[in-house]
Amino acid sequence: MIIVTRIGVTDEEVDHIRERVEALGLRTHISRGDTHTVIGCIGDEEKLTSAPLLSIPGVRAVHPVMKPFKLAAREFAAGPSRIPFGSGSIGGEEFVVVAGPCSVEGPEMLFETAEAVRSAGGLGLRGGAYKPRSSPYSFAGLGLRGLEILAEARSRSGLPVVTEVMDTRQVEEVAGHADVLQVGARNMQNFSLLTELGKVHRPILLKRGMSATVRDLLLAAEYIMKQGNSQVILCERGIRTFETATRNTFDLAAIPVLKSETHLPVVADPSHAGGRRDLVAPLSFAAIAAGADGLLVEIHPDPETAISDGDQSLTFDEFHTLMKGLRPFAAAVGRTLPPVREVASTAAG
Amino acid sequence: MIIVTRIGVTDEEVDHIRERVEALGLRTHISRGDTHTVIGCIGDEEKLTSAPLLSIPGVRAVHPVMKPFKLAAREFAAGPSRIPFGSGSIGGEEFVVVAGPCSVEGPEMLFETAEAVRSAGGLGLRGGAYKPRSSPYSFAGLGLRGLEILAEARSRSGLPVVTEVMDTRQVEEVAGHADVLQVGARNMQNFSLLTELGKVHRPILLKRGMSATVRDLLLAAEYIMKQGNSQVILCERGIRTFETATRNTFDLAAIPVLKSETHLPVVADPSHAGGRRDLVAPLSFAAIAAGADGLLVEIHPDPETAISDGDQSLTFDEFHTLMKGLRPFAAAVGRTLPPVREVASTAAG
Amino acid sequence: MIIVTRIGVTDEEVDHIRERVEALGLRTHISRGDTHTVIGCIGDEEKLTSAPLLSIPGVRAVHPVMKPFKLAAREFAAGPSRIPFGSGSIGGEEFVVVAGPCSVEGPEMLFETAEAVRSAGGLGLRGGAYKPRSSPYSFAGLGLRGLEILAEARSRSGLPVVTEVMDTRQVEEVAGHADVLQVGARNMQNFSLLTELGKVHRPILLKRGMSATVRDLLLAAEYIMKQGNSQVILCERGIRTFETATRNTFDLAAIPVLKSETHLPVVADPSHAGGRRDLVAPLSFAAIAAGADGLLVEIHPDPETAISDGDQSLTFDEFHTLMKGLRPFAAAVGRTLPPVREVASTAAG
Amino acid sequence: MIIVTRIGVTDEEVDHIRERVEALGLRTHISRGDTHTVIGCIGDEEKLTSAPLLSIPGVRAVHPVMKPFKLAAREFAAGPSRIPFGSGSIGGEEFVVVAGPCSVEGPEMLFETAEAVRSAGGLGLRGGAYKPRSSPYSFAGLGLRGLEILAEARSRSGLPVVTEVMDTRQVEEVAGHADVLQVGARNMQNFSLLTELGKVHRPILLKRGMSATVRDLLLAAEYIMKQGNSQVILCERGIRTFETATRNTFDLAAIPVLKSETHLPVVADPSHAGGRRDLVAPLSFAAIAAGADGLLVEIHPDPETAISDGDQSLTFDEFHTLMKGLRPFAAAVGRTLPPVREVASTAAG
Repeated sequence: MIIVTRIGVTDEEVDHIRERVEALGLRTHISRGDTHTVIGCIGDEEKLTSAPLLSIPGVRAVHPVMKPFKLAAREFAAGPSRIPFGSGSIGGEEFVVVAGPCSVEGPEMLFETAEAVRSAGGLGLRGGAYKPRSSPYSFAGLGLRGLEILAEARSRSGLPVVTEVMDTRQVEEVAGHADVLQVGARNMQNFSLLTELGKVHRPILLKRGMSATVRDLLLAAEYIMKQGNSQVILCERGIRTFETATRNTFDLAAIPVLKSETHLPVVADPSHAGGRRDLVAPLSFAAIAAGADGLLVEIHPDPETAISDGDQSLTFDEFHTLMKGLRPFAAAVGRTLPPVREVASTAAG
Repeated sequence: MIIVTRIGVTDEEVDHIRERVEALGLRTHISRGDTHTVIGCIGDEEKLTSAPLLSIPGVRAVHPVMKPFKLAAREFAAGPSRIPFGSGSIGGEEFVVVAGPCSVEGPEMLFETAEAVRSAGGLGLRGGAYKPRSSPYSFAGLGLRGLEILAEARSRSGLPVVTEVMDTRQVEEVAGHADVLQVGARNMQNFSLLTELGKVHRPILLKRGMSATVRDLLLAAEYIMKQGNSQVILCERGIRTFETATRNTFDLAAIPVLKSETHLPVVADPSHAGGRRDLVAPLSFAAIAAGADGLLVEIHPDPETAISDGDQSLTFDEFHTLMKGLRPFAAAVGRTLPPVREVASTAAG
Repeated sequence: MIIVTRIGVTDEEVDHIRERVEALGLRTHISRGDTHTVIGCIGDEEKLTSAPLLSIPGVRAVHPVMKPFKLAAREFAAGPSRIPFGSGSIGGEEFVVVAGPCSVEGPEMLFETAEAVRSAGGLGLRGGAYKPRSSPYSFAGLGLRGLEILAEARSRSGLPVVTEVMDTRQVEEVAGHADVLQVGARNMQNFSLLTELGKVHRPILLKRGMSATVRDLLLAAEYIMKQGNSQVILCERGIRTFETATRNTFDLAAIPVLKSETHLPVVADPSHAGGRRDLVAPLSFAAIAAGADGLLVEIHPDPETAISDGDQSLTFDEFHTLMKGLRPFAAAVGRTLPPVREVASTAAG
Repeated sequence: MIIVTRIGVTDEEVDHIRERVEALGLRTHISRGDTHTVIGCIGDEEKLTSAPLLSIPGVRAVHPVMKPFKLAAREFAAGPSRIPFGSGSIGGEEFVVVAGPCSVEGPEMLFETAEAVRSAGGLGLRGGAYKPRSSPYSFAGLGLRGLEILAEARSRSGLPVVTEVMDTRQVEEVAGHADVLQVGARNMQNFSLLTELGKVHRPILLKRGMSATVRDLLLAAEYIMKQGNSQVILCERGIRTFETATRNTFDLAAIPVLKSETHLPVVADPSHAGGRRDLVAPLSFAAIAAGADGLLVEIHPDPETAISDGDQSLTFDEFHTLMKGLRPFAAAVGRTLPPVREVASTAAG
């Protein structure tokens, strides 16, 4: 921590600042400039994190020197982390596309979707059983029944399943049915939930909150990791800005920024980022080009009748086209994709 | 709902749109303009809320006609709601200032603070027992012990107590110790928590999320109200923008906007909005001037040693000065404030 | 400037950083912590402002110590600046309300408006002759003819006139007709224009840009002041955020923040900030309560037929009511307002 | 335009609204729903654009039906526009990379840079002679001398030159030396400048403002086109949001959104979007993948000593690597790139 004093700070004030810092267990190093005095704090910076240094008379600015996260920091691991996923992993050479409906609406539509995912080269199935909805009058998911359908779809298709958990009380139940537990954007700073998920033996897919900085996202991951679960997958899904042409503003740069800050894998959700079906492909191509490890894509057998998020869901045919479209980009970044089975197109949408 | 078609929409497309709307149980009314056709949907708009109308071929834009919230809407109540609070209420003529430390750090500091609040004309005591912190390495509150201290402070001072609840599993416990349960900004869209709080017989103080629109905030209130608890107090505490001179950007206009949209009381939190001790007074004066029903203010016996939020906490003396400063503004807007006891100043700070 | 190095920085890197800084004419002061080395740069920080220090190997962060503006800084002046305005000034005890139509639409409506302003206690007349409009198809003002009408309205009413200048080529012409030259939000960083305005002997009313920080605004003022014109009035008029309930987000806290950073006067524009007629009064009350030195308010003889900004313009009656409403707030903050003539109400709206 | 009335609107109010709309020259079409009445306005919507419809009693919302821009709209052109650029064009099959220093610092460095651009497969040279700088104390460019150096670099290298124009008074001079005139982000809504540029026979590179929506950007293009100059190239360079990890937030989705709205070419500026040298490559790859027609990249012979923007400038070697890295992405999107001359690498960096 570096403390910068106000112009005209008195010696007494500097002494008082130094005493406060030393009382918290750090050493200090005073440097007097032409107009300001700078007080370097040497030792465990964590002890100062919540200390109200700005309220000490004479202090004008406080600059941290250390990153606020540790376990998630790139320096903490020897290399990029690979999180096991189905028979493969996320974070390695394979580019992992997870697809499925916004909500699990029933068994048939999900089984059909799982087949479409698999045949197009998708490696995981997503689907919501517990749905966070802005309005209490919207469909909130099938709950436990939805989880059972997901588990059944997994058995049939062999695809690992990703689904959202919204409440500490659901953690055990969701972990009993799904392969990866998703934390939605609105719960990214639900610290009770993060803490519970840190005790689970399942990978966590952590979506960035709508107003969360990259730093906030990494601190949220740190919550989970601090409890012992280091299997965290980060997901960029757009942030909230003034632009209304898209549902959210896809912060593409967050992908390489995260890659430079953390060893954790990073995936993108082009469906929520754009909120428009026609943007899913260009955003997906951009994500893989920028270094993402995978995608989360919403697809539906008949988007026009989807209970939720139909406007941003791809048909099976569109998904099939997307997966084929990804191949040259995967090649460009040295990633692999499972083969696309050509029959899929006819069977689907 | 009003559906606007694309230029050059075909008759078949218009027919298909009409069929889709009618299949959902509404009537339609077609209006052909010079370049566009507009399809008015008559009936229960709620049925269309989640329907992916934009994904129907030929549709260019969809405009809702109804407000998405009902119970919270001003039209739903005969007049402004008053929420019982201690021996008075929030939302009536009395301007209600609730003050206290960010975190309950121990019994002595809280009892001392409660006395300072009361003698300065504050009507409620705030203090965190469960603290949401961005970093898992920060102090997270005393938990149950903090609640007990709060309950004890209430007995001693006679002040009703406001404290945060972060988790569905804590609801019962917190409701057993506090008068008002606070939902923090980061949990404003924790829908499981909102739903549980809708079943509690306690007023809920709902803080606006950092990236929540006024509409989102009212929908969050609607979640609580839909379960049967209509005692919701809304709180403007700043939103996240590009400006870094303040911790958040205090959206002052949200106060009169909320007042025009809902019958629920609206309070402001100048401490979190500005994040700076020197801004608490001007933001408080602005809030009462703009029509707020009360304030939530952080104060501390010794901000320099506060475990959290010390930079934005007032000393007792500063709080006393603030309360005196509010009086002419209260008079200007026709509000009352309890008397300030002059002795307080000496006892405190 | 304080330079923080990366963990594991080498001695060679530190030497190289030191050399670069010293080559730019500053002295250095090295402080080695447990994990990082900190290099303090002593001397004229300005020389480092544009230097790409972050691109030097081993550098992780760079923190400025000095404020980037000088002439605008509070420390630069003995006290708050008063800018002459009509027979009085802005920045002193008097609370200055400037009102008028968005656009000058013709002589009659402007003369009528000037009379309404004066009789309600307004101290200045605003009106656009050159109008910046988002669409090239919108009315762009009467130009020179509008300026002539403004000058005539000034002669008749005795009110000083504020009007916008959009182009370096208009500066002389506008300065020849108006008392205060306004820079609109969209031109706040039109540095050529700011530079020209620095050479004019007229006060400049500088509106904050929609995405400008407080720091950006002060640097824009510095542009004008650096050329020799220190008569700058700052105006908070709302910033662009995700919230759509209001036209812009009124950053109320910017008023006291500016007051603590600069000696220049600060006024608020509640009309553009909210964009809604019903919000003008609460935002005005909040602005004066938070320490603003004045207001810029849009009024119109018949808002329903206004060529521009009718939705946010007050009628004369509404303006009269607003001015009366301001009085108790002015008293609360120790400000004076000219008397309101009761006859005005009947003559107007 | 569609006008939605308030619940409980009276017949008189509806009549009055209809009269106002018809007085402006449009026809109306009334549709009465269960709770609201909707008034469709048929005819030239432009006439209503600035009319204060919201201030008419009984009106609750107003929805436009037409797009606010015409000449820039995709529907206006038979296909994507190609803007001539050097011996080729922007907007066609060729992917156009324009590179160069932030500021023209002198002849040698620019000639050297032009050679590096050309040999790496860049098709244009950029460089600032007039520089908009947030601080008046920063280097503002060499002015006319800079333009002369640019013209000389063009003669030597054969590369067309792109440079910024900041002031209406500079237009002629800049147009006399450069091939493409750039409008910077801070001047995107400098309508006087846009209008002048509409009269010039040179392509205009229009950068998106920091708080400009896609719609604002297209309206700014419309300003230029309305004067007769339809050679406008749009540039996404990042918007201002709460995220501080990057200089701006690169709104990648704006590229495909613009492509769907307009026939004009769209390029990206990865240097300003990220503000970090390490982000230039991933952002460039993402831009081409998402459909951009070209890039604007900052490079410098020695970024450590660059007078401005050194932190985000690539060395010649890094630029060479970037250009090679782009090739597989160009192939993936069906674009061509000129060959990279392998010798370049040794000559440069």
